Amino acid sequence: MYYHDKRLQYPVRVETPDPLFARQLQQAIGGIEGEIRVCLQYFFQAWGARGPTKKYRDMLLHTATEEIGHIEMLATAVALNLEEAPLSLQETTAAANPVVNAVMGGERPRHVVEGMLQKHLLSTGLAAFPGNADGVPFDCSHIYASGNLAGDMLANVTAEATGRTLAVRLYNAAHDPGMKDMLSFLIARDTMHQQQWLAVIEELGGFTGALPIPNSFDQSLEKTEFSYAFFGHDKDGVPPPAGRFTEGPSLDGKGQFSAVQSTPMGDEPNLGPARDGSGAQSEQIGKPA
Amino acid sequence: MYYHDKRLQYPVRVETPDPLFARQLQQAIGGIEGEIRVCLQYFFQAWGARGPTKKYRDMLLHTATEEIGHIEMLATAVALNLEEAPLSLQETTAAANPVVNAVMGGERPRHVVEGMLQKHLLSTGLAAFPGNADGVPFDCSHIYASGNLAGDMLANVTAEATGRTLAVRLYNAAHDPGMKDMLSFLIARDTMHQQQWLAVIEELGGFTGALPIPNSFDQSLEKTEFSYAFFGHDKDGVPPPAGRFTEGPSLDGKGQFSAVQSTPMGDEPNLGPARDGSGAQSEQIGKPA
Amino acid sequence: MYYHDKRLQYPVRVETPDPLFARQLQQAIGGIEGEIRVCLQYFFQAWGARGPTKKYRDMLLHTATEEIGHIEMLATAVALNLEEAPLSLQETTAAANPVVNAVMGGERPRHVVEGMLQKHLLSTGLAAFPGNADGVPFDCSHIYASGNLAGDMLANVTAEATGRTLAVRLYNAAHDPGMKDMLSFLIARDTMHQQQWLAVIEELGGFTGALPIPNSFDQSLEKTEFSYAFFGHDKDGVPPPAGRFTEGPSLDGKGQFSAVQSTPMGDEPNLGPARDGSGAQSEQIGKPA
Amino acid sequence: MYYHDKRLQYPVRVETPDPLFARQLQQAIGGIEGEIRVCLQYFFQAWGARGPTKKYRDMLLHTATEEIGHIEMLATAVALNLEEAPLSLQETTAAANPVVNAVMGGERPRHVVEGMLQKHLLSTGLAAFPGNADGVPFDCSHIYASGNLAGDMLANVTAEATGRTLAVRLYNAAHDPGMKDMLSFLIARDTMHQQQWLAVIEELGGFTGALPIPNSFDQSLEKTEFSYAFFGHDKDGVPPPAGRFTEGPSLDGKGQFSAVQSTPMGDEPNLGPARDGSGAQSEQIGKPA
Amino acid sequence: MYYHDKRLQYPVRVETPDPLFARQLQQAIGGIEGEIRVCLQYFFQAWGARGPTKKYRDMLLHTATEEIGHIEMLATAVALNLEEAPLSLQETTAAANPVVNAVMGGERPRHVVEGMLQKHLLSTGLAAFPGNADGVPFDCSHIYASGNLAGDMLANVTAEATGRTLAVRLYNAAHDPGMKDMLSFLIARDTMHQQQWLAVIEELGGFTGALPIPNSFDQSLEKTEFSYAFFGHDKDGVPPPAGRFTEGPSLDGKGQFSAVQSTPMGDEPNLGPARDGSGAQSEQIGKPA
Amino acid sequence: MYYHDKRLQYPVRVETPDPLFARQLQQAIGGIEGEIRVCLQYFFQAWGARGPTKKYRDMLLHTATEEIGHIEMLATAVALNLEEAPLSLQETTAAANPVVNAVMGGERPRHVVEGMLQKHLLSTGLAAFPGNADGVPFDCSHIYASGNLAGDMLANVTAEATGRTLAVRLYNAAHDPGMKDMLSFLIARDTMHQQQWLAVIEELGGFTGALPIPNSFDQSLEKTEFSYAFFGHDKDGVPPPAGRFTEGPSLDGKGQFSAVQSTPMGDEPNLGPARDGSGAQSEQIGKPA
Repeated sequence: MYYHDKRLQYPVRVETPDPLFARQLQQAIGGIEGEIRVCLQYFFQAWGARGPTKKYRDMLLHTATEEIGHIEMLATAVALNLEEAPLSLQETTAAANPVVNAVMGGERPRHVVEGMLQKHLLSTGLAAFPGNADGVPFDCSHIYASGNLAGDMLANVTAEATGRTLAVRLYNAAHDPGMKDMLSFLIARDTMHQQQWLAVIEELGGFTGALPIPNSFDQSLEKTEFSYAFFGHDKDGVPPPAGRFTEGPSLDGKGQFSAVQSTPMGDEPNLGPARDGSGAQSEQIGKPA
Repeated sequence: MYYHDKRLQYPVRVETPDPLFARQLQQAIGGIEGEIRVCLQYFFQAWGARGPTKKYRDMLLHTATEEIGHIEMLATAVALNLEEAPLSLQETTAAANPVVNAVMGGERPRHVVEGMLQKHLLSTGLAAFPGNADGVPFDCSHIYASGNLAGDMLANVTAEATGRTLAVRLYNAAHDPGMKDMLSFLIARDTMHQQQWLAVIEELGGFTGALPIPNSFDQSLEKTEFSYAFFGHDKDGVPPPAGRFTEGPSLDGKGQFSAVQSTPMGDEPNLGPARDGSGAQSEQIGKPA
Repeated sequence: MYYHDKRLQYPVRVETPDPLFARQLQQAIGGIEGEIRVCLQYFFQAWGARGPTKKYRDMLLHTATEEIGHIEMLATAVALNLEEAPLSLQETTAAANPVVNAVMGGERPRHVVEGMLQKHLLSTGLAAFPGNADGVPFDCSHIYASGNLAGDMLANVTAEATGRTLAVRLYNAAHDPGMKDMLSFLIARDTMHQQQWLAVIEELGGFTGALPIPNSFDQSLEKTEFSYAFFGHDKDGVPPPAGRFTEGPSLDGKGQFSAVQSTPMGDEPNLGPARDGSGAQSEQIGKPA
Repeated sequence: MYYHDKRLQYPVRVETPDPLFARQLQQAIGGIEGEIRVCLQYFFQAWGARGPTKKYRDMLLHTATEEIGHIEMLATAVALNLEEAPLSLQETTAAANPVVNAVMGGERPRHVVEGMLQKHLLSTGLAAFPGNADGVPFDCSHIYASGNLAGDMLANVTAEATGRTLAVRLYNAAHDPGMKDMLSFLIARDTMHQQQWLAVIEELGGFTGALPIPNSFDQSLEKTEFSYAFFGHDKDGVPPPAGRFTEGPSLDGKGQFSAVQSTPMGDEPNLGPARDGSGAQSEQIGKPA
Repeated sequence: MYYHDKRLQYPVRVETPDPLFARQLQQAIGGIEGEIRVCLQYFFQAWGARGPTKKYRDMLLHTATEEIGHIEMLATAVALNLEEAPLSLQETTAAANPVVNAVMGGERPRHVVEGMLQKHLLSTGLAAFPGNADGVPFDCSHIYASGNLAGDMLANVTAEATGRTLAVRLYNAAHDPGMKDMLSFLIARDTMHQQQWLAVIEELGGFTGALPIPNSFDQSLEKTEFSYAFFGHDKDGVPPPAGRFTEGPSLDGKGQFSAVQSTPMGDEPNLGPARDGSGAQSEQIGKPA
Repeated sequence: MYYHDKRLQYPVRVETPDPLFARQLQQAIGGIEGEIRVCLQYFFQAWGARGPTKKYRDMLLHTATEEIGHIEMLATAVALNLEEAPLSLQETTAAANPVVNAVMGGERPRHVVEGMLQKHLLSTGLAAFPGNADGVPFDCSHIYASGNLAGDMLANVTAEATGRTLAVRLYNAAHDPGMKDMLSFLIARDTMHQQQWLAVIEELGGFTGALPIPNSFDQSLEKTEFSYAFFGHDKDGVPPPAGRFTEGPSLDGKGQFSAVQSTPMGDEPNLGPARDGSGAQSEQIGKPA
């Protein structure tokens, strides 16, 4: 079960509220690279963790719990950036606030209203919501919890890699020192989170131990003649570019890479006629209309 | 641009059509672990590939093109498994086919109808569709193409790890030898695809070269005191489990892991009052109702 | 504006309630082939109809208004089919109702619970909802109202074609005489609705007058050398099947069909390097890591 | 920020695992009546709470934090109910477990596989996921945080009313004493949560103080002649049923209810012709084709 | 069944077309606070209404039918606001219309194009569509019809509370007198609709009669020791804020409020090992890799 | 199976990159009128094609394969249009590029950032993605493959009609000669694709042979008295507008059009009381609370 402390994990301050930056921050809340995703992903992986590898359940719970606090920081930052947002075309907020005015470059409110997410203006009363920077709500199909520990760790590194990439883009786009400070903290946490999930794979034996995922499947049951071959699909048989993936031992130590041109091994498929009563046209069934 | 050959990449045959297995195969077509996802993901990564690392564009195009053929194989398998599916409660298909009957364990058609995806029965006329085994359509927000090569490679390994896990589950659930044969081919290809994307990361310098992702951000701008620390969030300060992620050098070679208890560094947030005209209750604005 | 009459457009009666058929009927309410779709589609086309072709606004309003009554009939049918649905595994509803029992083939409640939409059991209290037979909610992106009258009429015929196909499949699956009667009415209406939208295209000059859609674009601005050519994309240049679409005059009377093998007219695309500050890996930017 | 305790808020035990009940429990996790919804809804309302009514921010945080623990309990219950689920048609799990066998009524595994969410079998490795009982992922557009305190409290009571209704349906469907015990706790919490949000409205002055929502809008600007009139829309003018909503003082004490037949006050709308260049048919623009 | 009158329920006129306001109005059509939602919600509640409380079926039908006319008014308003929208960057619409020009503040077309919904420009030919102000289509999972009358009435009040809040925000953002007039009518109707659904709850006995919802569940089966207790989840046991929800009689008259600190009553959950054949890593199953 | 050629089907060049046009082009990639839709639609129709009409399988495969190349062209065009997009408010890209500057009309970067899809800026690193011009991801429920050949052909013409309408709108909005050239090619292909699917219907016997869809249903089973009647739903019985759809022979040659006023043929529906245990209020069940 869970507890809260009213204070934030790290300070969030905004010197010059900027509604467009509020919009951009939404991507870090409810984008597929955002914090709701990692938070729920780590929770669901933990809650479904089974048996001998239970240590990772605990590890996941710590970091999932941390991530709630990250959503909280970002939601606070969005609300602060919206504090002086114009509510209509006519509103003279900017004119009344010389600092905003200067930063906005003399922008008239209409442009700010156009650039804002309409959801901020019309649905939330100038607060954050669980959706991305284009207003698309977060959809929990993005919570990856496969029941395979190594696969889940890779999903987590991926989430933190795209998460840190997003945070870096926001850092580069930010002009407010408070926002840059907050993002420099979140970027550091994403650095650690990338590391920690990869460290689990190292504990599981690294690539040679963990691959191919799932490593519990008897590889003699797969068509191993195709397990380490890069298939070229160029129309004229131009070979694929040479690389680590076309020659040398495979990363799991269980095969040798090669490159081969792909050709059809199967026939043209032949489905039977449409069934009578299946709602097809008579011609598909082969009966007179 | 693209070309086709009417033949299949690998043979697809079904000895005993089974509508429930048709349903399960849909997960490999339109589930988030499925082939539409990897096909479009590799295409969009290729089509957006920029500059010096253009070699990977070519590599991605070969494999994306291969994946169209995998969707084709699975869609063919779904259609073949639906060939003798009952169209209604009364239909006596099973009774008329002793082989099906035996495999089905004397199942009556009504139960088969219940187990079928209604979409197969009502919307597609007994053919595959781009959705998962519970009938949820595939949604292209799952195409990960971040513009960061290393992040994308990790997303690709993740997709192939969950993809091979799914293929293994389907192999274990299958009872038809033709289906087992097809899956043993697809499992082998997933083995290779896991390898090849990881091989790109090795070419990019492995973890020390590629991490933290993005490696183009100047780490001196992040709060490095938090970049390699595992944060404990246990209410009573019970330390997190010790592991590779709490001690020793970090995997990127740029820091030392540690474990620390997380405590608030920020204050309780303080948002201003609701704005007049923002649709809040009077009490939130601080004006008389 | 709108009015209602408490009575139904056509009688809806169910002699033997069947929760599985309730599930299947949902496809006709909230599937993409269903009545919510056509109802809202005709309304939005009407409400956006402009200028000289205003007659079609009126026509659309009549039929859109009719369609509300069709959703009402189907929602009533779903509720009636759920009247005796078991609320749990243990419930002995079927046993208590010999007629149901006979029709169900001695089915035990557990199977009925498995086959039911859980949403009917858990979310609606045994009533209809605006989603399809697999429980996926209807999504208004399927309301096609393009602002082009001929395109919209084609979208409407398509909707009625898939709608009648669905109604036929439901008729074939139905065993209750009341349900067959209701569906025989809805099938007749779908017959008419297919006709009426095509009749509009005839009024607009038929294919020669209406095509290509939009007919307001000056065709001299398109690359007309490709406007009536069927492109073959077989890898080995095997020609496409001959047909009405490879030879003879085009249906709009403005060209001659032909068949040609497709070949690249463009070059390999060349995107510039990734931008510094764009969150790519250093290698993509071409700067030292 | 947030903390966790590894123990559960309330005990979760399952004597006889039942994969169908696992499926039904998903509705309480990721259905629109479920716990993810209330958890995130209370968090986002808290994180956006402004100014003078800040006390409710604290209140919301306590309950939001409690709700994480409810998702955890339900996810645990799902995993426990899936412990002996068959992975394939052939698997003889049930046969090997006489207790399960008895409860299942001699059910063969195939039926259980049919009734299971395919996602549990194929995507999660027999664990919970953030979606509903028909496999539809939770979508964060259901997080209602309007920026209006009274409106949000009503949204919260609604969520807890549908939540308790769902919990009662699950209680009625459950056969396992552990599951009934867990649900009797969750039902009690839903009772309280309904109460507490309504208590806030009482603190805000009850219906006379809080209505109409938002109470910060000057009612003299609305067309008050229509503010307390029930509009009848019967085609033949049959009056609406008489009730508290057609006569007597309004609940906000600011008007008198009445019932009137609705008639058009506006004209038939008249949109201009389609614009040249807007992609309409020539006939819509009024130019020669 | 249903009928229409070509005239609008209330006049809709636009003196100065404004494409940005067209965009904002979309929220009232296809936002979750919008008119499609209430229209379909009231219809589905009516169509599923059962037995003794059938009077509310009639009441719901009247208001649902009214709401179609509200969507129609708003769709008309959107189309009128788009009448002079620029179709491209180069178009000199504004320059040609001095009134628009003045209102737009000398805006060049590019800004208008940027602020417009691209869907208005590219998909609808300058007409309304069933989606919100950020272009997200309406999704019928937002139609709440729970089968519980009191729960549904609360859902309806909530919908009208967020609906009136939205209408007020649009009124405040509007600059056109025609639009302000239309909104002052819609705001009045939302006032009434809030009232009428609450009046039903009063008819059902008010809070003491209707709560807890559902009132048909025997409360002796719930853990009543937790039914009226506010649970504190502060990490350090700081008590929740005192209020009507922590002391005094509960609103249903069936208990006394209290405040207690939440502590774990359950144990750490213990799931069994992953199953062989379930696609987990070998380490999770506890077998050698 | 499939092959690629690295070159594009048709040249794509951009003289003056314009991030707003990149946004607009997304509609042609991932809008419902876009190329992903037709590509997957033709593939799924082909992969499910059965029996005697197999010729159309081949035809569909050719064109589906062509469409991959169209997505590729558009994705390339998006990336090229984003080449000089500003990454932040402060960036002086435009100032540094006099050509852009001139075209942009002296626009400052802030406006460009506001007009851009945030997803381009924050999620893709300045590349295309499979979503529309408002950032909504493509959803594969739009892939229409009904199993009825004539219905599918109509769906395909509809897709190409809305597709060409979109391409024409983009052509009209474009200012770059390279973009106009690319679009003039795509418009030509859409012309052909409209033709070719209609040509199939001609091969199937035209309207008299193909209608009503499905033509395999015995029309004597439908209520033919309603099969060719236009139903008027005007409240006051004002007749519908006269037209080809109210008189004369029907287009399928099987009936005569007429116009009739719609009146209720059914009764007011009468659902039974809510079931005990179904979670309704006591009043709905008819038991004492």
